Amino acid sequence: MIKIADRISRLGTETAFAVSAEAAAFAAQGHKVYPFHLGDMNLPTPANVVEASFKAIKEGKTGYCPNVGIPQLRAVLAEDINASHGTRYAMENVAIQPGGKPTITKFIMALMNPGDEVLYPNPGYPIYESQIEFHGGKAVPYRYVEGTDNFAFDMAGLEKSITPRTRLLVLNDLQNPMGAECSPAELEKVAELVLRHDLYVLCDEAYFDIRYEGKSRSLASLPGMAERCVILYTFSKKFAMTGWRLGATIGPKEIIDVVAKLNVNDESCPNHFIQYGAIEGLTGDQSEVKQILATLKERRDTAVDILNSIEGVRCFRPNATFYLFPNVTGLMQKKGLTHYDEFRKAMLTETGVSACTRLHFGRALPGEKDFYIRLAYSGINVGEIKEGLAKFKAWAES
Amino acid sequence: MIKIADRISRLGTETAFAVSAEAAAFAAQGHKVYPFHLGDMNLPTPANVVEASFKAIKEGKTGYCPNVGIPQLRAVLAEDINASHGTRYAMENVAIQPGGKPTITKFIMALMNPGDEVLYPNPGYPIYESQIEFHGGKAVPYRYVEGTDNFAFDMAGLEKSITPRTRLLVLNDLQNPMGAECSPAELEKVAELVLRHDLYVLCDEAYFDIRYEGKSRSLASLPGMAERCVILYTFSKKFAMTGWRLGATIGPKEIIDVVAKLNVNDESCPNHFIQYGAIEGLTGDQSEVKQILATLKERRDTAVDILNSIEGVRCFRPNATFYLFPNVTGLMQKKGLTHYDEFRKAMLTETGVSACTRLHFGRALPGEKDFYIRLAYSGINVGEIKEGLAKFKAWAES
Repeated sequence: MIKIADRISRLGTETAFAVSAEAAAFAAQGHKVYPFHLGDMNLPTPANVVEASFKAIKEGKTGYCPNVGIPQLRAVLAEDINASHGTRYAMENVAIQPGGKPTITKFIMALMNPGDEVLYPNPGYPIYESQIEFHGGKAVPYRYVEGTDNFAFDMAGLEKSITPRTRLLVLNDLQNPMGAECSPAELEKVAELVLRHDLYVLCDEAYFDIRYEGKSRSLASLPGMAERCVILYTFSKKFAMTGWRLGATIGPKEIIDVVAKLNVNDESCPNHFIQYGAIEGLTGDQSEVKQILATLKERRDTAVDILNSIEGVRCFRPNATFYLFPNVTGLMQKKGLTHYDEFRKAMLTETGVSACTRLHFGRALPGEKDFYIRLAYSGINVGEIKEGLAKFKAWAES
Repeated sequence: MIKIADRISRLGTETAFAVSAEAAAFAAQGHKVYPFHLGDMNLPTPANVVEASFKAIKEGKTGYCPNVGIPQLRAVLAEDINASHGTRYAMENVAIQPGGKPTITKFIMALMNPGDEVLYPNPGYPIYESQIEFHGGKAVPYRYVEGTDNFAFDMAGLEKSITPRTRLLVLNDLQNPMGAECSPAELEKVAELVLRHDLYVLCDEAYFDIRYEGKSRSLASLPGMAERCVILYTFSKKFAMTGWRLGATIGPKEIIDVVAKLNVNDESCPNHFIQYGAIEGLTGDQSEVKQILATLKERRDTAVDILNSIEGVRCFRPNATFYLFPNVTGLMQKKGLTHYDEFRKAMLTETGVSACTRLHFGRALPGEKDFYIRLAYSGINVGEIKEGLAKFKAWAES
C-alpha cells in the first residue's frame, strides 16, 4: 500500500459528483432522468466568443502567454469590473486563471496561516471548507435563515463566530446553493465587521452577472473594501463557457503579485487563445449573453411556479444564480422520510428528477430543523422542467 | 501592509522570466534580439489537432467534463504510453491536467509530508525545488557531470544523498536544461536504489517524444517501477501546444485517485474541447509532428556546429529536448568575467543573443568550477540562429 501524505486526509470534495454518477447509472437502465443536479449549462457559448478564439489560434496565439494572462484581457476585465462595481482596478489588479476555482485555492494559500480561522457559508460551495482545512486552517461556518422573499444572512450568528483568530471571510453573495444576497444595509454591516476585525474577504462573484432584475452589488464597492477583497471572477456562467476553464483573481496588487507567483508554480499560464475569445465576450456584441439570461429566467419562473404549487414545498424566486433551494420539510414529513438521501433516491427512482440536497453543500448545523434540496436549472430545458416537475408534483401529492 | 501567509516565503519561481523581460526591454530600445532564453515554440500546432478541437466546440463540448478528463482521451493516452513504455496502464491510471506543471504540484501534495526529503536535479527545472519547499519538504539536490558525449548522472553522489528521511525522487530524464539522459545501466541502478530505499518517483517526461535519434527510455518501464513512478506527460512540446495547457498525470491507481480529488478541488476539470484535439494528435496523421522534429533537429545541428567552432566554448549534441548547455568557462576567462549575470548581460548587449545561465536552474553547488549557459532553440528559426550565433562568435573571438 502506498503511503499517501497526511494532508490528503483533510481534503474534501464535491459529493454532487456522486449524484451525477447515480443519475447516469439510473438513465443507463433505460429510465428518463431530469438533470437538476448539475451546475453545468446546456447552452452554447456565444458564436462571437468561439470565432474570436479560433481566429487567435490561426494567428498563432498557441505559445505561452504571461503567467497572469495577456495584458489586453487584464485591462479589459479591470474596466468591466470598474463599470459594474465603481472600483478603480487596473491591469495590475487582475490575474487570469484557468477557471473560477483556482482563485479559492490561491486566496487561501496567499493569506491563511495554519490555525487561522476562516468564516465560510454553510450551506455553501463545498470547496471552501475543503481548501481551508486542507491548508491547515479552521473552517468556521456561518448560516442563512429564511426571510420573507429570500434567504437572509444570519448577521448576529456571523458576528458571534468572530474570534481573535478569525482572519478571513468567504462571502458568496449571490449564493450557491440558495440564491441569497445581502441587502445594501447588510453589505455595510459586513464591511464594518471586516474593518473592525481586520479581516480579508474572498468575494466569490461567480454569479454576479447571472441576474434577472435589478443590479448586483459587491462588497468590494464599499469604502475601504477594495483593499480587503479578492474577487473570484469567472467567464463560465455569463458566457456559457464552463468547459473552457477561464476566470480571474481580482484584488489588491500586493495579493495579486503573490497569486502571480502561484500561477508560475502551478500552471505556468492560462490557455492563451481563449483569452482573445474572452475579450470579445466582454467588449463585443452582447445579444447572445442577453439571450442566455432570458432563457434562464424563463426556466426559473417555470420551475418556481410548479414547485410552489406542490403541497409541502416552499420555494423562493431568487433574482440571481441559476439555483433553487426549496424547503421540502412538509413533503418529507408527508412521505414519512427523515433522511435526505432516502428522499433524494425516492425522488429519482419514482420521478426521474435528479437533484442535490442540503448535505451536498456542507454538514447540517446544530439546531437545523428544516429540509432543503437544490435544483439547478442551467442544464435542463423548459420542456423538461415542466415534464419532470409535473411527475414530481404527481408523486408528491400521491 | 497586507500580512501574506508564511508559506509564501518558501515559494520559488522561474527566474528565466526576468531574462525574457530584459530581452524585451532591450528589443524595445530598437536592438535586434535573438531569443534563445525561451522554452516556448514558434511552430504552429498541427492543423488536424486544431480542426478536431474546433469541431468539438461546434459539437457542444463546451460544458464541464469529468474531473480527470474525458474517458476516450484517458484510454488513448494509456495505450500510447503502453506502446512506447511497454507498461500496462489503463484509463484508471491517467488523470488529464491543464498542462504539465500541475503534475509536479499534485505529486508533491499527494506523497510528501512536511520534513520528508526529496531528491531533485540541479541544474534542473526550478519548480521542483520551489514546490518541495513550499509544501514543507527538504529539497536535496543531485548533480550531473560532464561525460564524453553528454552530461551524465552523478550516481555516486545521488546514492550518498539518500538518508532515512528520503521519500521521493524527481527524475527528469531527457533533461532540461542539459539534455542529459540515463543509459540503460544507469536506469537499472536508479530502479535498484528506488526499491532498496522505498522511494516514489516523479518521472518528468516532458521531452520524451522530442528525440532525434534512437528511442527514449523510461524508468517506469523497468520491473516493479510502474508501481512507484508517476509520469508527467504533456502535449505541449510534441504537438507544439505550449499555450493550450494540456497534460496528464500517469501512475498507480491509488495515487491517481488522490490526484483526481486534487483536480476536483483545484480546477474542476481540464478544458473540455481541447481533449478532442489531443485524441486526434495521438491517433491521427503524424506528418506535422514529424516535421516539428525535423525542424528542431536542423536548428540543433546549426547551433551546436557554430558553438563548437568558438574558442572557449564546448557544447554537447543531445539526442533529446530542444536545449543546449554549453560550457563557457574558457570564454568567460578570456573576457575576464567571473559572474554569470555579467556574462549574460554582456552577451545580450554586445550581440543580441539572449540566453539563460546555469543559475536560472538552481543555486550553484559546492565545488562547481565550470560555467554554463542554456540555449533553447525551440523559439528561433535557423536563419536567426546562424545570424545570432555568428555575432556571438565574432564577439567571443574579438
